[in-house]
This record gives sequence, C-alpha cells and structure tokens, in this order.
Amino acid sequence: MITLTTDFGYQDPYVAEMKGVIFTINPEAKIVDVTHGVEKFDVRMGAFILASASQYFPKGTTHLAVVDPGVGTARRAILIETKEGFLVGPDNGVLVLAAQKQGIKRVFQLVNPKLMLPKVSFSFHGRDIFAPAAAFLDKGVVPEEFGPEIIDPTTPSYATVDRKGESLNGEVLHIDGFGNIITNINEKLETNSRTLKISLPNATLQLSSIQAYAKAKPKEPLALMGSHGFLEIALNQGSAAEKFGAKIGDAVRVAPA
Amino acid sequence: MITLTTDFGYQDPYVAEMKGVIFTINPEAKIVDVTHGVEKFDVRMGAFILASASQYFPKGTTHLAVVDPGVGTARRAILIETKEGFLVGPDNGVLVLAAQKQGIKRVFQLVNPKLMLPKVSFSFHGRDIFAPAAAFLDKGVVPEEFGPEIIDPTTPSYATVDRKGESLNGEVLHIDGFGNIITNINEKLETNSRTLKISLPNATLQLSSIQAYAKAKPKEPLALMGSHGFLEIALNQGSAAEKFGAKIGDAVRVAPA
Amino acid sequence: MITLTTDFGYQDPYVAEMKGVIFTINPEAKIVDVTHGVEKFDVRMGAFILASASQYFPKGTTHLAVVDPGVGTARRAILIETKEGFLVGPDNGVLVLAAQKQGIKRVFQLVNPKLMLPKVSFSFHGRDIFAPAAAFLDKGVVPEEFGPEIIDPTTPSYATVDRKGESLNGEVLHIDGFGNIITNINEKLETNSRTLKISLPNATLQLSSIQAYAKAKPKEPLALMGSHGFLEIALNQGSAAEKFGAKIGDAVRVAPA
Repeated sequence: MITLTTDFGYQDPYVAEMKGVIFTINPEAKIVDVTHGVEKFDVRMGAFILASASQYFPKGTTHLAVVDPGVGTARRAILIETKEGFLVGPDNGVLVLAAQKQGIKRVFQLVNPKLMLPKVSFSFHGRDIFAPAAAFLDKGVVPEEFGPEIIDPTTPSYATVDRKGESLNGEVLHIDGFGNIITNINEKLETNSRTLKISLPNATLQLSSIQAYAKAKPKEPLALMGSHGFLEIALNQGSAAEKFGAKIGDAVRVAPA
Repeated sequence: MITLTTDFGYQDPYVAEMKGVIFTINPEAKIVDVTHGVEKFDVRMGAFILASASQYFPKGTTHLAVVDPGVGTARRAILIETKEGFLVGPDNGVLVLAAQKQGIKRVFQLVNPKLMLPKVSFSFHGRDIFAPAAAFLDKGVVPEEFGPEIIDPTTPSYATVDRKGESLNGEVLHIDGFGNIITNINEKLETNSRTLKISLPNATLQLSSIQAYAKAKPKEPLALMGSHGFLEIALNQGSAAEKFGAKIGDAVRVAPA
Repeated sequence: MITLTTDFGYQDPYVAEMKGVIFTINPEAKIVDVTHGVEKFDVRMGAFILASASQYFPKGTTHLAVVDPGVGTARRAILIETKEGFLVGPDNGVLVLAAQKQGIKRVFQLVNPKLMLPKVSFSFHGRDIFAPAAAFLDKGVVPEEFGPEIIDPTTPSYATVDRKGESLNGEVLHIDGFGNIITNINEKLETNSRTLKISLPNATLQLSSIQAYAKAKPKEPLALMGSHGFLEIALNQGSAAEKFGAKIGDAVRVAPA
C-alpha cells in the first residue's frame, strides 16, 4: 500500500500523473490519498498531517510526501526505512515526524537513475523521482538499491524536543480548527506529578496531566495526548490558541508542577 | 465495497485515518469516497447526498456517513441493515433517507468494544467506532455482533412524509446549484390526475405531473422525479427557489389539482 | 483501469454516482481520479489536464472526461480508440488533445442503448452514458458495439496547429499558476536553427530553442517542451504571461530565427 500527501491541490493533473507513474511501474499498487490540500510549501503542516495519518496504516505501508519548496535546488531526495515501513520524499523535514513515531532504522539518498523516470524534470520530482521510488519499494526493491545510506537527514526545530531533567522543551507544531494548541512533544512525560506546568511565551498554565475533554468544565483549559500522538493544550468549548496568545513555532516548556 | 460520506474536508488527516483503520482490519477492502465536502455539521445535506449516491452502488455495499455534531454526547452509534446492504453512522438522521430508499430491515446500536478501536476518543468516532464497524461488516461480521437491535432510530422531520388521502405533506430538502427545489417526497404519487397542485409557503403552483426538462418552455416551472429519486420543482433555464421564494425546511404539500 | 476528469467538484454526489455505476457493471474496475476540479464548463482546461495526465497511465487505460456545457443538446457522445487505449466523453473537444498525443485510430458515436443505463436523464450523461461506456470498454466490449464510426469529431481551434513551411501557427492553451505560457504546439520543431522566433499578439521573442529552466538567468525568458508535452514560454523566476501580455486563446507563431 502507498499513501500520498502533497500540496498539489485538487485541480491540476500532477497527482494523477504520479498515480499513473506508480501504476505503470507497479500495476498491483493500492494507492490511498492522505491529502493534497497541504498549504503550498508548508512543510511543517505536511509533516504534521503525515505523522497523524501514518500511524493508522498497516505495517509495510510506503508513505510518499511531497511538499517541496526546494525542488530544483541541492536538497536531497530520500527514503527512510522505519520499523513500520517506508517514507519517501524530499529531505526537508516533511517525513521526519512520521519517521520518529515509527522508529527510524536507516535513511538512504535516492540517486539511482534506474529507479527514476528516464527523464527527470527540474521542477516535478514527485512524479519523476518519488513516485517511482514508492512504486519500486512497494514492489519489493530493497532500500540499498536506491543509493547510499546517509546519517544526517534534515531535522527542523519542530522535530526536536530537548529534555532537561524532568522538563521538556519543544514548540507549537499546529493550531487546529478548534484553536487547540498542538505541540511537538510526543515523549512520555516521566513524572509522578499529577500536575504539569506548561509555559508558553504569553501564558503559564498549571494543568492536571493528560485528561479527557469530557472531564473539563466549559472554558477550562486542559492538557491531553491527542489522537495524533502529540501533547495538546485545549480549552473545553473554546479556542486555547486565542486565549493564550499562542502561535505556530512558539517555544513550549513542560515540567512537573 | 465501502463508501465514505463526511464533512471532514480535504485538508486534514481524518479521512485518511479512517481509511488506514479500515485497511488494517480488512486489507481487501475497496473504499470509494462519496464526498468529504458536506457543509460542516449539515446532517440534512449529508443525508441527501448519501441517499442520492447510494442508489447507484452494487448490492452489498456498506455506506459509512459521518456528519456528527453530537459526537461526545449521548447520541447513539448505529448500523442499519437494509434490503441492499448496510449503513453505518451516528443516529442523527444522516443515514435515514438512504435507508428508506433501500428499505430498512433492522437497526442495531454499536456498543461491542471488540469491534471498535481499542481506545475510543471523545471526538472522533468516525475513526474509532464507525470505520471499524464498516470494515468488519464488509468482512462478513453479522449485525447482531455489534450490539442490541433498536426500534427507535432518530427520524428528523425531513425524513417524514405524511399522507392524507391523496395529498402528501413533506418539506424542502435541498436547493441545488441551479435553484431547483428538491423535496423529500419520494413516494409514488397515486393519482389519476394529470395535474398537481403544489403548495409552498410563498407560492401555489399548478403543474403537469412528472415531466422532463426538455418539454418545458424557457422560464416555465415543472415538476419531475429527479435522478436523486425525490420530487423536484424546477424552472426551465432559471432558479425555481428564487422565483417561488423557497428555502430548505419549507413545508410542501402535493395534491391532485 | 479507468480515469475520471470532470468539472463536478468535490461536494455533490455526481462523481460517486458515476463510480457506483461503473462498479455495478464492472466490479473489478480500478478507478483513478484525475481531477473533478476543472473550472465549470471550461472544456479547454479539461482537455489540457486530460492530455497532461493521460500520457503517464499504462497502455490500455480508458480515460473518461465530462466537461459538458452542451449536455441535453444535439452534441454527440463519443469514444475515441487510440494507439494507447480509449477516451470517452462528449464530442466537444475535451478528448481531442489527449487523443492527438496518443494517436487517433477510430472514433465511434455512443448510441447503443444496451450499453447505457436503462433510463438516460436529460442532464447527466456522465452517469447514464459515459460511465457505462467506460465500464463496458474496460470489461472488453469492442468499440463497434457502441455505435457507428464517425469521421468528423469536433476539433476546436486549440486542437489545430498549422504548418507553413518551417513555421507553426497555434494558440495559447493554458497559463499555469507560475504564469508560464503553454501553447498547443506539440509537434517536433523541425529546424536546424538554434534560435526560435516566437510571435505573440503583444510581443516577439528570440529564444534559444528548447532548453531547461536551470540554464536560464533569473528573469530571462526561455522556451521549452514542458512535461505536459506542449511548447511553453517561461520566465525564469517570473510570470511570462504578465511580462508578455499573453492570455488564453492568443495566436502563437513559431519559426526559426
């Protein structure tokens, strides 16, 4: 099974061209769209959506993501072998949150021209490099065939959580449609404390750790591990982002209170 | 075969998460999107779209619909066994127009935790309850396994047509992009009269019964049984809704003239 | 394999109805969406998108396209047999660019009622005529079964390139999101000249023939054969359409300089 996550939208022929390439190489492929509605060039949003969706797919799935503002520059094309399957896309961070969730085994650069379209365009690596790579991986070609192993994949700030003793330092990854503040903190909060101190640039909160919406009173803030697998600050029946003046990229610090 | 109808849109990972859950339970599933563009929380629009589309799918199809403003409240999760297949979703009316068209056999509440995801979230029953139910039904699990039979599924006003002698009382279900007034009347109009009297709050029409667009003169109103299977009032080359001041929810009375 | 290209959008049940019809006739069908986001009634845009996408699909694919402002009039329903597969849709030009690329073998009119839905509506031939035709073709029914061969399929101006000696006369087919001017010229430019003279209504350019973006300096115009297979005039890091005052439908003349 192959999933597709892009910022190509729903009007142009680009997504269909990728599917045509995949089916030409691998007529038995099963393709599932995650979304093609990522905001243009918003690598972080693509990374978040892929990380959320990918955890629900069967083991062995190949996830292809193309949000690629650097196409045509020296940025590398990569595949990540994880404990769950494969991720294919540009080396700009779009794959990294999903890869971390799945457990990274090895990373390879895609350089073998035999596993690309015969003519690689300057501007559409989704069709010419990534779609063939996904099709061949799904068909059973081993990662080593695609190119050399690399040890320094790009890791943007939103892919890093620093631990200092019992406290975790991360950042705001996403504000969803309800105004929930989704952080990049997906590590286990190893604390016996029943209460967390969560610091944002414009607010400091004392919150009962990891609870459900149902238990909070209206307009009461709460912290929970969302179903996307990241720590989230929410306001029951209200916008936490508005109330706490939070925006994407803000630093977040979580510690036992 | 499983179809999906939701108001989740085309940007978020939610639809893909449902598909991942279905494929994890049932790798052989064949999934077809009806639409994910239902207006947010517009149960009636979801019901209309599902009723229109579902009649064209093969016997045995399982239709999953999630337009679910009441998620997290006490509203029930149900499956409807019909003469054509299965319908799965919240008990808020979103399934009922399609179910009536197919012929309702039995309705069951979804309460068996073994046929749900291990951890059911407060806010996303589409992924945690309905997607597994559709996957298991498609795999052959019998309706009785999911929970108790119920006899009182929610029936909104737009799902009811009252017959009084030869006249039918229903309501306006939908105004389409052309301004056609689509009613919820899908019963056979048992009349020998060649002419119908159709009463709307702001207009009373005398119309030749059930005819085709082609036969009407420009700007002439006509009544026809649309391909969605509901009685429709149209204006050849114009907007009937505008001309007759009709809006969704308006009472409609149809009688022989 | 069957692909779908329409202007039906992503909210209404129409696309799903077509898919239901296809699966009912041909349960083994594999359906791929090209796009349903063609601008309403923009036959030219549909033709361009289909021509771009179709070249990446496997041999034997049936491409169904419905952008059909003339539905309900006397315009014919056709299928085109090409060297690569089949194209199905209205005879208004939407199929012709893809057909020319693939190499047209024969064209047939769809008139056999046994290969349509039992009841053909006035306004939705996509579901009632074209979807069944695609399903039956994909199942192996031969083109002759659908109706008489015709020799005069509609050929809009954008489907015609006139050659006069070494010069080619075509028109602007599409302006893409980057402002690149895409012409309908897909013939081999048989010239030994290294430089082309390209005439637009508001500009005349001398350009090195067919080169890559990478080789042009910023803001420098260039001509290239785009991956859609048509001659394109681009401005490296800028909008060629804006700079040269070009719009869709403009006459284009290409000659050796």
